[in-house]
Amino acid sequence: MTAATELLSAIGTVGRDPRRGGFSRHGFDPVELELREWFVAEAERRGLAVRADRNGNLWAWWGEPGRDAVVTGSHLDSVPGGGAFDGPLGVVSALAAVDLLREHGFAPAKPFAVVVFAEEEGGRFGMPCLGSRLLTGSIDADAARHLRDPDGTSLADAVTAAGLDPARLGRDDEALAAIGTFVELHVEQGRGLIDLGAPVAVASSILAHGRWRFRFTGEGNHAGATLLGDRRDPMVPAAEMVLAARVAAAEVDDARATVGRLVPNPGGTNVIASTVDVWLDARAPDDARTRQVLDRIRGMATEAAQREGCDLAVTEESYGDTVHFDTGLRDRVAAALGGVPALPTGAGHDAGVLAAHVPTAMLFVRNPTGVSHAPEEFAEAEDCESGVTALAAVLGQLAG
Amino acid sequence: MTAATELLSAIGTVGRDPRRGGFSRHGFDPVELELREWFVAEAERRGLAVRADRNGNLWAWWGEPGRDAVVTGSHLDSVPGGGAFDGPLGVVSALAAVDLLREHGFAPAKPFAVVVFAEEEGGRFGMPCLGSRLLTGSIDADAARHLRDPDGTSLADAVTAAGLDPARLGRDDEALAAIGTFVELHVEQGRGLIDLGAPVAVASSILAHGRWRFRFTGEGNHAGATLLGDRRDPMVPAAEMVLAARVAAAEVDDARATVGRLVPNPGGTNVIASTVDVWLDARAPDDARTRQVLDRIRGMATEAAQREGCDLAVTEESYGDTVHFDTGLRDRVAAALGGVPALPTGAGHDAGVLAAHVPTAMLFVRNPTGVSHAPEEFAEAEDCESGVTALAAVLGQLAG
Repeated sequence: MTAATELLSAIGTVGRDPRRGGFSRHGFDPVELELREWFVAEAERRGLAVRADRNGNLWAWWGEPGRDAVVTGSHLDSVPGGGAFDGPLGVVSALAAVDLLREHGFAPAKPFAVVVFAEEEGGRFGMPCLGSRLLTGSIDADAARHLRDPDGTSLADAVTAAGLDPARLGRDDEALAAIGTFVELHVEQGRGLIDLGAPVAVASSILAHGRWRFRFTGEGNHAGATLLGDRRDPMVPAAEMVLAARVAAAEVDDARATVGRLVPNPGGTNVIASTVDVWLDARAPDDARTRQVLDRIRGMATEAAQREGCDLAVTEESYGDTVHFDTGLRDRVAAALGGVPALPTGAGHDAGVLAAHVPTAMLFVRNPTGVSHAPEEFAEAEDCESGVTALAAVLGQLAG
Repeated sequence: MTAATELLSAIGTVGRDPRRGGFSRHGFDPVELELREWFVAEAERRGLAVRADRNGNLWAWWGEPGRDAVVTGSHLDSVPGGGAFDGPLGVVSALAAVDLLREHGFAPAKPFAVVVFAEEEGGRFGMPCLGSRLLTGSIDADAARHLRDPDGTSLADAVTAAGLDPARLGRDDEALAAIGTFVELHVEQGRGLIDLGAPVAVASSILAHGRWRFRFTGEGNHAGATLLGDRRDPMVPAAEMVLAARVAAAEVDDARATVGRLVPNPGGTNVIASTVDVWLDARAPDDARTRQVLDRIRGMATEAAQREGCDLAVTEESYGDTVHFDTGLRDRVAAALGGVPALPTGAGHDAGVLAAHVPTAMLFVRNPTGVSHAPEEFAEAEDCESGVTALAAVLGQLAG
């Protein structure tokens, strides 16, 4: 085992999801809080001083905190039934890179911190990159406080239970000013590095990305006693919308549209649903194309709802425009690593949120399955080690 | 308020489901157990001696228990987010009918019992009419013990927690021999009595009815990073199957096919599902037509799965052939009530399970919304009173 995989294995039983497979670790739930405690202990063991910011992101400082710091890290939460690497690999690689730099006798000339962002996946409150969005003010604090998880708990109540003051959620200029440069290492969530035969790449861009909830409302009724002609069954237009998503994405270059979450209410086998909620995840290389995909799906879904006598309401739950990472920093990072390739990604990241505010770079580590957001997500130990070496080299240059 | 609606209002807060609306009361869950305790108290208040049989059905005896009894009753559980009348109306009407018969000085010449069947809706363990199927042996006891609820709890564990011995589940010849005639009163689950302008009808038949689980298996992956061409997304054939159900049912006279429950796993917004479970509820006037609907849907679903590179496995969770109620008993009941109409129904009932073993009849009470399995399900107090009067008249004739 390498330093990074050893750290990962230490949390390999936390938040396992026997029903879905993989891990379910969500913002401020008992599992994520346990992971946060584990992180605090690991950081303190290294003599790093840890504090939580107003939005629940954790900062572990190597030396004195200060402005214009070199900051690295990622997140510890997962999607429901997610893999072991998405998020935690960036956190453990940051800790391992600190160890490696120290072994080489390096001491940072600039302030230096390892950060853990809260609820990056939006698996609990539906808002991806919640911690970094709050920090940068790219989500309204009041709207955030009223986000609710599937059990109806508000974010305000969840952060209160975690020891934070919900009134203090929101844009944190002090924390933002502390970040001079941000570097996030992440497992790759596609097959780019497999095809290139390389262990590590630098990120070039992130697709524009939105999440929308489509609520179809019909009339709940008895599945046996209700004639077909008397039905207003919202499951029918919901199914048509799932198929419309595939059609619409195929019409637009390099777009993706996915329905991975669909909840009929009440959800009984012998019950015609009264409402069906369908969440659309749509992404494309730019804002115009993403909106084009959305509009096409909404148009087809509206027609399908009308045919069934159902209503449709569409709510935008999150949206982030295309991210182009700082090219100067990207070239510097690639050069420091001996010219590693640059790859675009369809996946969102806290680095994408921060890129609008501070110079930001990302490193990707090869994923031999090409699969992510699923238990099959993987990185070989030696590729994880290459990632740590690369991250240490970049951080050493930036903080030296 | 009438006697029946007064009894109903006493349980009007038990098992309310604030998320779905209506009531969620499922077999052997804390809510159903509370309702059973309430029933025991109401029966004992009337001097009826209550005992649970080996399968968790409750029997309240008016006088000495015995064979060849006149038995009436229904169930207390509901579908998820169900109405207040489906099930409980038959139970409270039975108690109110006992009161009414006594007021008229009637004492039964035959053994007489009010019965509450367990988990009629299959809302927890997926098997409708679980209590009556176990009693009559129309479900294998060992298969039943291994049924699991959505949380993974087995029926064996659930009945153990409720104080029953799971080893004793199964066909109960003693209980079956106790039933000479069974009469179930039920709220109507359609518009038949609205159209006829009558408060009460007698049942003629129940549609053949099956439930099948379609499991589509693809490959879980990242919703942003996975190209459309690389996807094996089980949500796509699942959506096609929902639409196929409507098409197939429309092709067959008087058939119904419904998808009210659909669960993607893991169910994250930004995750391509690895599996999707879709439950089909299909019914038609006879076995051949029901199988025709199923085969057509399975054919279309199989093709859709193949197009997406997904696998499909179909499991029959329950099946019941068409029920034709005893015509001699039906005519006697209708005559006792001054010639009330006879109506077929698409809804399943414990009476339908018992009809294969003992002379059985059903009374329907008008539902002015025509809606059932939903919070809008309703019966006017005066129609409930008509139901109690009718039930008492029938029981008085049968037990006199």
